[in-house]
Amino acid sequence: MNDYVNLEKCLDYQFKNKDLIVEALTHKSFKKPYNNERLEFLGDAVLNLIVGEYLYKKFPQSNEGDLSKIRASLVNETGFTKLANEIKLGDYIYLSIAEERNKGRTKASILSDAFESIMGAIYLESGLETLKPIILTLLEKSYDKINLDVLFSDYKTALQEITQAEFGSIPDYKIEGSYGPDHKKEFEVSIWINNQCYGQAIGKSKKLAQQAVAKIALDKLKG
Amino acid sequence: MNDYVNLEKCLDYQFKNKDLIVEALTHKSFKKPYNNERLEFLGDAVLNLIVGEYLYKKFPQSNEGDLSKIRASLVNETGFTKLANEIKLGDYIYLSIAEERNKGRTKASILSDAFESIMGAIYLESGLETLKPIILTLLEKSYDKINLDVLFSDYKTALQEITQAEFGSIPDYKIEGSYGPDHKKEFEVSIWINNQCYGQAIGKSKKLAQQAVAKIALDKLKG
Repeated sequence: MNDYVNLEKCLDYQFKNKDLIVEALTHKSFKKPYNNERLEFLGDAVLNLIVGEYLYKKFPQSNEGDLSKIRASLVNETGFTKLANEIKLGDYIYLSIAEERNKGRTKASILSDAFESIMGAIYLESGLETLKPIILTLLEKSYDKINLDVLFSDYKTALQEITQAEFGSIPDYKIEGSYGPDHKKEFEVSIWINNQCYGQAIGKSKKLAQQAVAKIALDKLKG
Repeated sequence: MNDYVNLEKCLDYQFKNKDLIVEALTHKSFKKPYNNERLEFLGDAVLNLIVGEYLYKKFPQSNEGDLSKIRASLVNETGFTKLANEIKLGDYIYLSIAEERNKGRTKASILSDAFESIMGAIYLESGLETLKPIILTLLEKSYDKINLDVLFSDYKTALQEITQAEFGSIPDYKIEGSYGPDHKKEFEVSIWINNQCYGQAIGKSKKLAQQAVAKIALDKLKG
């Protein structure tokens, strides 16, 4: 009998070494001679690489700083908890009774750690090339939910704080046009601060274009 | 003609895509449309994984916290500069004249970044399994120089600071014995604070045993 059939279906992957998977699912509260912390250490590094490489290839024009920023917005407790929930990982974690009562099964820290551990375990038994499509499928699936708005959410806010301090006003975003068929429309947005244009950008939504142009203005103002 | 013959010999690796290697060797001061910062982003992640996995397997008894600590002592500017010097990477970096005059070729930050970039480039063109032995060979070669003394150097110091504050005395290390043939000798050391024994440990040198036992005492005192 295999207790992990549904998890394996969600991952489209069959575990080879069940002991390793049990270790990956064992929270330290469960008081076994093993727990998932060492595999989490490994999983953290492998996820960092896979997501880093994915972004490196997806955004060939982005510099190192932007890539790091985008990665940091995906590779963190919140991001991994989303991915853990996508595969219902909470159902499989071994917890102490106390932690169970304490709603441990839905805690972000526990879910995120178990997600890293299980990915570390798959890496260990099957290697990077097997793990990559598993992660990228999950990431692409969650991408509409995480999406680029969230990834770039800090640019507009950061810019507004600066213009308020420096000019006593907030930036003005103008839609300059939209292009392409309805299902693939792109928007061009310009940004104005104190009646002066600081740049234009095109994005797959108005919000994305605004974020992109906010970054341009931010870079200009910073020097 | 191949300008990188000696570098390739040091790495025991032949570059496939010369453009990529040039990019990896180009410091941003060189003012080209490309530089090595994006490859550095990738290299950083892949080095973190390779060293992490190496330590995970080398120290099967170490917990996540210790593994992170040991890795942090290897995966940093100083560590990568050592490895960069091992392959004489400084000779190959493309720099601006100003940076050249400024002794950029021997700067730790520039060497370390170029090391990460070149490893990122090898990963990109040949994959993880090709890169692993290259890194591990370099690491093992530099290990006698970096060695575990350095990795653990903070335990003795950290402990001494605590015992001075708490007991007004410094720890006393006693050699309890040595075992094994001369070329493979191990030392057993005990640690005494205020005439009380806080633990024993065995190590491949007296220093290593002292560091190990200092960690034991440190853990006891802390909790």
